[in-house]
This record gives sequence, C-alpha cells and structure tokens, in this order.
Amino acid sequence: MADSKVSPTPLLKDELDIVIPTIRNLDFLEMWRPFFQPYHLIIVQDGDPSKTIKVPEGFDYELYNRNDINRILGPKASCISFKDSACRCFGYMVSKKKYIYTIDDDCFVAKDPSGKEINALEQHIKNVLSPSTPFFFNTLYDPYREGADFVRGYPFSLREGVPTAVSHGLWLNIPDYDAPTQLVKPLERNSRYVDAVLTIPKGTLFPMCGMNLAFNRELIGPAMYFGLMGDGQPIGRYDDMWAGWCIKVICDHLGWGVKTGLPYIWHSKASNPFVNLKKEYKGIYWQEELIPFFQAVSLPKECTTVQKCYIELSKQVKAKLGKVDEYFIKLSDAMVTWIEAWDELNPVAGSTAAELTNGPKK
Amino acid sequence: MADSKVSPTPLLKDELDIVIPTIRNLDFLEMWRPFFQPYHLIIVQDGDPSKTIKVPEGFDYELYNRNDINRILGPKASCISFKDSACRCFGYMVSKKKYIYTIDDDCFVAKDPSGKEINALEQHIKNVLSPSTPFFFNTLYDPYREGADFVRGYPFSLREGVPTAVSHGLWLNIPDYDAPTQLVKPLERNSRYVDAVLTIPKGTLFPMCGMNLAFNRELIGPAMYFGLMGDGQPIGRYDDMWAGWCIKVICDHLGWGVKTGLPYIWHSKASNPFVNLKKEYKGIYWQEELIPFFQAVSLPKECTTVQKCYIELSKQVKAKLGKVDEYFIKLSDAMVTWIEAWDELNPVAGSTAAELTNGPKK
Repeated sequence: MADSKVSPTPLLKDELDIVIPTIRNLDFLEMWRPFFQPYHLIIVQDGDPSKTIKVPEGFDYELYNRNDINRILGPKASCISFKDSACRCFGYMVSKKKYIYTIDDDCFVAKDPSGKEINALEQHIKNVLSPSTPFFFNTLYDPYREGADFVRGYPFSLREGVPTAVSHGLWLNIPDYDAPTQLVKPLERNSRYVDAVLTIPKGTLFPMCGMNLAFNRELIGPAMYFGLMGDGQPIGRYDDMWAGWCIKVICDHLGWGVKTGLPYIWHSKASNPFVNLKKEYKGIYWQEELIPFFQAVSLPKECTTVQKCYIELSKQVKAKLGKVDEYFIKLSDAMVTWIEAWDELNPVAGSTAAELTNGPKK
Repeated sequence: MADSKVSPTPLLKDELDIVIPTIRNLDFLEMWRPFFQPYHLIIVQDGDPSKTIKVPEGFDYELYNRNDINRILGPKASCISFKDSACRCFGYMVSKKKYIYTIDDDCFVAKDPSGKEINALEQHIKNVLSPSTPFFFNTLYDPYREGADFVRGYPFSLREGVPTAVSHGLWLNIPDYDAPTQLVKPLERNSRYVDAVLTIPKGTLFPMCGMNLAFNRELIGPAMYFGLMGDGQPIGRYDDMWAGWCIKVICDHLGWGVKTGLPYIWHSKASNPFVNLKKEYKGIYWQEELIPFFQAVSLPKECTTVQKCYIELSKQVKAKLGKVDEYFIKLSDAMVTWIEAWDELNPVAGSTAAELTNGPKK
C-alpha cells in the first residue's frame, strides 16, 4: 500500500547546511533523524584523520578530516584549530548555503513542557527568518511571534525591525557553565523552560555558545571565526565566546540582529571540569580585558562589509590586546588568514581581503 | 483550640507601601487580600474629591484626594496630574517607606501554568532584593535565581551585580497595547507565561508600564515622576513611559539595575481604544523624537544623586524637546517643581533642588 501522507517540504531545505564537529561515530543523529534527514550535513572530523567516523544510513553528508582541511586550504589551514571543536568553522567556510545550523554531538532532542519533542532546527529557522529589534526593548519579548506584538510606547518607526543574523539556542539538563561553576555546582541541572525569544539589544555583549546555534551565513558568515584553540594553543573553550563577541560588535555596526532563547536542545553530559579548568584558565582572566575591549570597539563608517569590519577588528585586536598576551597577535594574524581563506573559497564581488590588507594605500 | 499555624512575617512588611490610583471602590482588593493585607496602602483618589471610595474591611490605608494634594503641596500641586492615573506618583512622594509597589485597580491575581495563584508582590520583592546585571547579558536569564547561574564566558568581575532599582512586571490576558494595535487586534490576549526575569541592559530603553511595578524608593524615587497628563494636558497614557525613559537613563548613569519579566498579574479589561487614541495621538508622533533624545542623553559626572540627575535631565528636556512642542517646556518646569516638592516632603542631607536650580553660579 502506498503511503498517502504528504510531507510538506521542510523550511529552507536547499538553503541550509548543518555543521557538526566530531571525533566519534554520529549515533546521536538517530534521534534527530525526523528533523535533520532532509538537510545536508557538513561533518568536520577533529583529531586523528585515519579514524573512520560512522554516519547513520540515510543522511546526506560531506565529511572533512584534517588532511582534507590541509589539502583545501594549504598554508592557510593554520587558521583552523585542531583537537578542538573550534574546527567547526571550517564547515561554515566550505558551505555554499545561505544559512548554517551547528550542533554538538552530545546534544539530543529536548521536550517542551507539554512533553512534545522540540524541532530545534525549525525554531531556529523561524528566528532567522523573522526580523530582530535591537534598538528598543519589547517587554513582551519577540513581537513577531503569534499572539504577541509591540507594546504601548514602542516607537512605530522601529517596528519593521532589522534582518536577523544569528539565532542562539539554549540547553536543558546540563547548563553551559565554566569550570569553576561546574566545580562549585556539580549537580545543577537546567530544568527551566523559558518560552521566549528575544533580541539582544544593540551595544550589549553576550556569551555565545556554539552548541546550538544558527546564523545567516550570507550576512555574518565571514565573522563566524572560532579562533585558535586546542592543539598548540594556550587556551580552549573560548572559541564560541570569541566568535560571539566579534559577531555582536559587527552586527551592531552593520545594523543586524542577534536573538537568543528558544529553541532548547537536551545537553546530555557535562564535560570534565578539571580538564575544562586547564583549557579555560587563561581565558578566565583574559576575558576581564576582552570584554572592555569589545565594549569599546568602534568600527569606522568605511567598514561597510563583514570582511572589512573583520579585518579592522583584527587590527584593533593586535594593537590593543597584543599587550595582554602575544597569543592575541597570533590570533589577529589568524583572523586575517581566515578572511583570506574565506574569500578564496567564496569569491565576492569587489574588494578582497588581500586588497584590504596589502593593497595600495589611499 | 488555638491555631497552631505560624504565619511567617511577610517580606518587607514595614518597608513597603502599595500605591493605588483609583476613581472607584476598591473591590478588586478582595482578591489580593491574602497577599496585600499585611502591607500599608496609599490610595490616590483621582477625579471628583467629593466622591467616597470604599475600601474593603481590614486593610490598613491612607487615602488622598485632590483636595488633600492641593492642601499638602500648595502651589506645587500643579505638578501632579488630575483625571489621569499619573496622579499615582503623589503616593510615591508621601510614602516614607524604602520600597513601593504600584498596581492598577483593574488588575487581578493571575495563575501560573500549574494553576497556582501568583503572589505578584512577593516576586517583585525578590526582584528588587537581588542584584541586577546590566553590563553583560546572561543567556540563562536571572543568574541569582534558584537553579540558574552565570554561564560560561560571563566575566567574573561582573558577577556581584549592582543594586536593583526597578522591577517591571507583566500582564496576562489584556496586553498593554497602544490604541492603534488595540484597534487592529481587538481580540488578542496574552496567554504566554514566560518564566523569566531579566535585567534590561545598560544603554537600552524600554516601555515601562505602571500597571504592575515595584521600585526602591530610596534609590530611584525622585525620578519616578509620571509627568503632566490628563486634565488640561495635550496627552495621556504616556505617564509611565515618560517615567520609564527618565529612570532608565538615570539608573544607567548611577549604575543601578532595572528588571523586567515575572511576576504576571491578570489584566481584566481593555480600555476603550477610541478614547485611548485621542489621549495618545500626540505621544505617538512625539515619541519618535523622544526616544532618540533619551538614547542620546548624557549626564555629567557631577550628577551624583537622583535629584541632581533629574534636574539636569529637566534642563535638557527644555533645551532639546522644547523645540518639538511647548508642552515640553511646561513639563520641564513641572519636573523641577516635582523635585522641589519631593525634597520638601523628604528632606535630604546636603543640597536641595532650590540650591541646584537657583543657587549661585560656580
């Protein structure tokens, strides 16, 4: 008997890639099958490239290991982290789609308070396809959501909103805590389902977690660089934070929105706090200088593209954070390399990073 | 048989007044009896002072009508609105308590998703007694709430937070919409219970609704002026908005926090959108100039008290908004009168408004 059910085409089916960094077999995809199977996956294999990663049957994917990254980027592969989930940003670079969703392989399908399984990807797509409101706070949260609107006192000139560049989703069960908080509260679990999506206001920084994240690659992709972490680097677990601070100041400058809130995923297992502490400890004191730096960043009017903004940011990183630690000089150079590699794989009309950094002076 | 139950003393019992503006008998208090009865009420009777307002038995209250306001403030009574709920701010001025909770008389006890009646006052007290985090956004919302904390990437130097000046609560059932939105969506009801409290970031303005609002009167009281609305004025329904913009820029300047979210009250009845449109229409276009004005306000370092900030703000209102409409010149003068009246009823050590405005030039 033929199945008479007609499945609607999933939203953005041909316009979105799912990027997954991993070191193990992707059994976790079984649980996501109803939601992810229609989409294309980009798997970035971290660690030993000779290991074979098993992907469950029926998924459409491409997989890159370290040898592939080295082959494709040549010397520019130095900007892609090794032995750290920061390597995921290579997937953003090789994608040709307009939107990216990225998820960790220890994240499972969460349930809403009614017990229904949450289609996280669908909610992210709703978030990135509806406008953001970074210039004024709406007390009833997302004004574009069904059953909600702008409240009394919200300026009418701001009600069209602006394009949404990033949708930051949250986590039930294991919250995204740093090592000291993990150590102090080993048993804390997040069981609060907050039924809201909100725009993070212009001028406000936030801690962006890469575990459950979607973005408009055409808008903000070149700034979604996860930095130098892991093997050979003095720091880890700040890859997504770094990207979050960079994308936020650039979105603020270019007039785009960043949302946080729904959807939730179920984060299954806390990472080892002692290992995390070793990775994080430099970040924990560096961030006290990084936050004021990013809060004070000002991008000139001439920075009209993400690439131009990012190159300018890399210069300010070198000039101001280079004094904090020489790591930031290396990171600044890697930011430029990242843009060069991005532009090589994603040729854009107009100026290239090479022109921006090495071109003739005006 | 003696009742062996021991009722705990309600939080802040002797440190909080409940301010209610009204034109009718306060039957709505019956529903609030279990939560409000331990507290002192300040009732500000609007409209005809010869009318008698009935207050249910057993409540401890003081009531002021227009004759009382005129008698107490003399010529300075001109700064208190008439025939508009903006008159409630007179109650803030005559209170001698550290905290204020203000609520409209068409607001009832709401239920949380489990069906439990919400003690709105208790939640507001929790909000004002715990710190705020205006300098960096915490993606798991209020980090001080049980089961929550600061997430990875949140600077440790900011985790002590700052004092909370204001707690802005929300509304189930009838949302706080302006007249145009009411007209377009006459049947829209708010049924979404968002289980969150969050700090509105520094530098971000919001539409503050006076329907369900608590604040630390000792910190921010002198800036909680609800302006000139109603009888004899060209505008209404912007009293709380005006106060919200003023308190936000002053809290940002002085380093205090403003929270929004829980608790919800049940807002029973939509006001008439045609009447509202008449009251609001000037506000609807003025706010397009007011928001940029407040976004650009800068208070000098010398403004170290709320009074000094507010007098400075009144000068900037006159200088910059006086061009928008002469109403703002009148409002600016009323802001000064309000501070003079406040200081008369609440003598403070050090400088008075009179010194600030008329004193010798430096």
